[in-house]
Amino acid sequence: MTNKFSFQQILLNQLQIPIELLSKYKQLGLNEKEVMLVLQLLRYLQIRNEFPTPYELSQHVTMDEQECANLLRKLVQKNLLSIEKKENENKQLSEAYSLDPLWEKLFIEEEIEIQEEQTIG
Amino acid sequence: MTNKFSFQQILLNQLQIPIELLSKYKQLGLNEKEVMLVLQLLRYLQIRNEFPTPYELSQHVTMDEQECANLLRKLVQKNLLSIEKKENENKQLSEAYSLDPLWEKLFIEEEIEIQEEQTIG
Amino acid sequence: MTNKFSFQQILLNQLQIPIELLSKYKQLGLNEKEVMLVLQLLRYLQIRNEFPTPYELSQHVTMDEQECANLLRKLVQKNLLSIEKKENENKQLSEAYSLDPLWEKLFIEEEIEIQEEQTIG
Amino acid sequence: MTNKFSFQQILLNQLQIPIELLSKYKQLGLNEKEVMLVLQLLRYLQIRNEFPTPYELSQHVTMDEQECANLLRKLVQKNLLSIEKKENENKQLSEAYSLDPLWEKLFIEEEIEIQEEQTIG
Repeated sequence: MTNKFSFQQILLNQLQIPIELLSKYKQLGLNEKEVMLVLQLLRYLQIRNEFPTPYELSQHVTMDEQECANLLRKLVQKNLLSIEKKENENKQLSEAYSLDPLWEKLFIEEEIEIQEEQTIG
Repeated sequence: MTNKFSFQQILLNQLQIPIELLSKYKQLGLNEKEVMLVLQLLRYLQIRNEFPTPYELSQHVTMDEQECANLLRKLVQKNLLSIEKKENENKQLSEAYSLDPLWEKLFIEEEIEIQEEQTIG
Repeated sequence: MTNKFSFQQILLNQLQIPIELLSKYKQLGLNEKEVMLVLQLLRYLQIRNEFPTPYELSQHVTMDEQECANLLRKLVQKNLLSIEKKENENKQLSEAYSLDPLWEKLFIEEEIEIQEEQTIG
Repeated sequence: MTNKFSFQQILLNQLQIPIELLSKYKQLGLNEKEVMLVLQLLRYLQIRNEFPTPYELSQHVTMDEQECANLLRKLVQKNLLSIEKKENENKQLSEAYSLDPLWEKLFIEEEIEIQEEQTIG
């Protein structure tokens, strides 16, 4: 039996995550289950599945469908996740998750805090 | 107040994680806390801190030092994490975590399973 | 006019390239046009266009179709690029570029050279 | 002889580059040598060498020191590269390359063009 694998497949099957998410999620009041749900969402967004269901998400985490639905709602309430309405060329409506509220908090607000601290300090 | 940020900093501060880790950790018997510890280890390895302490790790996760130490031990016992002895040019010994056992399981053993299933099927 | 952009789009639209390719292509006897063609191939592979035509490639580089075709042939002759035959479920044949010969050269052969040097040294 | 390599080293030694750079450098009036110099700069920035010399850069490209110096100057003149003065805690001055002008052109101006086209159209 040969151990066959492809470097190319390894290189092409990666997800890029901002270090800030890993180093600051605790400050944002998130726990590991919530961050992992964020990473799963990002994974689906990357393969153009923009509105994975709680059921789909639950297949890859140690949470059931209901817990996933609850956590998604919580992320939306905390303004870390938004749901955007989209209209395609055929006027069909669809919904898409956007993690931009989270990235803006991590990339922009952090900067403001630093500036404020420096001003105060 | 300006919302100042640097695209360059965003691009340079990322971690690459194999999709397989996100999609298959549940199959490996890991939960979200354990995966997050793996990601934190990877983050430290990237900045050449090859043997972060349980205390350091605990600063960024919702677990205390003791829980981090326990989970690290569990990852080693499950053969997903190894500790390697290193000797530098001055004959000084140090230890370094290696996630290669985990990557080999994800990249190579999966492949073997697929081959076996195909052979059987 | 607002400068609208999405962090999410930036994060999701990246290509990961091994540092070794950038630092060692000169040693492999490649020039900048050839490396850029490799990166363009990798970009197409990532979006599952596994056999881009010289014409498609030429749209994004400062080379015409003929020059792209010549360089692709040269990469194959140098054993850095291979063309694989694939059969889908409907028994339809297709071809796909694979950069695995290049990655194997960069990731494995380099290692052998280092080991040989250490043995000799 | 064993073919020894570490998946971990492969994962940790990558550079993330925006797809837009690869797909639009031709529109920005850049050629392959110039883009490769940009990628080499990004590579140095990632390892915190913020002001690599033309000589250092020339070691990894098929251009000599003088050609690298010329191309760097050209990138600055095209407003794709900037040189920033930095002061550390000890009041020591240093210079650092920043590719933010390039990223802003790729991520923001593109968006403006699209908006203008839509407004006009």
